[in-house]
Amino acid sequence: MADNLNDSLLSEFLASAVDAAHKAGEVIRKGFYSTKHVEHKGQVDLVTETDKACEDLIFNHLKHLYPSHKFIGEETTAAFGTTQLTHEPTWIVDPLDGTTNFVHGFPFVCVSIGLTIGKVPTVGVVYNPIINELFTGIRGKGAFLNGNPIKVSSKTELINSLLATEAGTKRDKLSIDACTQRINSLLFKVRSLRMTGSCALNLCGIACGRLDVCFELGFGGPWDVAGGAVIVREAGGVIFDPSGADFDITSQRVAASNPFLKDALVDVLRQTE
Amino acid sequence: MADNLNDSLLSEFLASAVDAAHKAGEVIRKGFYSTKHVEHKGQVDLVTETDKACEDLIFNHLKHLYPSHKFIGEETTAAFGTTQLTHEPTWIVDPLDGTTNFVHGFPFVCVSIGLTIGKVPTVGVVYNPIINELFTGIRGKGAFLNGNPIKVSSKTELINSLLATEAGTKRDKLSIDACTQRINSLLFKVRSLRMTGSCALNLCGIACGRLDVCFELGFGGPWDVAGGAVIVREAGGVIFDPSGADFDITSQRVAASNPFLKDALVDVLRQTE
Repeated sequence: MADNLNDSLLSEFLASAVDAAHKAGEVIRKGFYSTKHVEHKGQVDLVTETDKACEDLIFNHLKHLYPSHKFIGEETTAAFGTTQLTHEPTWIVDPLDGTTNFVHGFPFVCVSIGLTIGKVPTVGVVYNPIINELFTGIRGKGAFLNGNPIKVSSKTELINSLLATEAGTKRDKLSIDACTQRINSLLFKVRSLRMTGSCALNLCGIACGRLDVCFELGFGGPWDVAGGAVIVREAGGVIFDPSGADFDITSQRVAASNPFLKDALVDVLRQTE
Repeated sequence: MADNLNDSLLSEFLASAVDAAHKAGEVIRKGFYSTKHVEHKGQVDLVTETDKACEDLIFNHLKHLYPSHKFIGEETTAAFGTTQLTHEPTWIVDPLDGTTNFVHGFPFVCVSIGLTIGKVPTVGVVYNPIINELFTGIRGKGAFLNGNPIKVSSKTELINSLLATEAGTKRDKLSIDACTQRINSLLFKVRSLRMTGSCALNLCGIACGRLDVCFELGFGGPWDVAGGAVIVREAGGVIFDPSGADFDITSQRVAASNPFLKDALVDVLRQTE
């Protein structure tokens, strides 16, 4: 395939993903402002309904355009089990990242859509419909926030850096102790810590330089990172396993930073293992 | 003073504070989008300049209108030392809450303006100019987000609650260990944890029900809480010392929640003392 054809195809894929994200974003926005008016049981239903409706909407939109492509989604996986990631063009979708935020009305929620080709994240869209921020990236073509080019921060010292991580959803003693032990070690080394509740938005925070380093262990699946991975890399950042090993999109472990801070972050995380 | 005169005076005070917050917000917005283009030394200067410019702007605006009122501001206090809080009408101003966020371009920054009368927080304005959210409250007259009434969440169980706290700025071992010990204890008890980097916005998060419980120890001063305190109370929330004692605006310790969750939060915090 000639490079220029490839370029135009990838641009078309991105445009399609943005359209799908906007459609799903509209559904999320409506749900977001109505969660306050339902009881707890109803809130859970609302999340499930919104999640499902958004995934259907995104999948239908993209399957109609690209019937030969593969699809992996959080909701579909929850219902039908894991789909193996192959070398085929594969859309990996989290229809609603930040479900706890969604239930509580905390404005860090997003749609995350990634396209892998040959297992490599190639097109990424992360859209926060509440504060109206659209992050996009195409492999080799840069990363953008609402159409403006973005790049990672230029911080070179961990002590001047803003770190994001998450407490995760596991509530057993081993998981919580390990989590707070990592936070304890890192608080001596960084300027401050943020917890937003959205893995995809943390990656985009790295991409646009709001955050300098982030990591998360034990999140849901590849849908949390497939979109953000392209965006981080195209903004000049690095995405890697918290151990320092290569990033594996299927591993439920991720870290990202500007290129200067990777080693320092990995060093601290290794000490807490 | 007749109640209706009092009401109209307080409404006028609020309108004046909102005008001042909008003016300062404009300065913050401009600085926010230019922090990426300055080096680290320059960033610190930019914070100081923005902080100082906003405080001057707010103080000048309010002093012109209310020459007999007292004023306490973060920048003025840093330069000239602590001003005693008296029973006189006193404007307590944080011109830029979330300075670390400001430097990093993380969109949780705000102007916080509170007016105490008889040492009681009576008028409050907290304005985030980046995501354009204006929280307001007048004692006895309700709390509002962009003009719409807000109220605290109705959660009754800590385990369903979203907690916010901050890592603070102290980096000695005692402080960090105490901080992570509190986080550790709380993670067993709550649904999840958020850290936004803005004390005033955390209080407003309680007020509008995005957050269910929050606490912070050792923050800067009364300017971090004077605006938010009115807004929390007027939204039906409670504001108190993390020990469970009465809220003291000068203590640099604060907790807030909906009325159902106070005792449960205090219980957990007491266990970690």
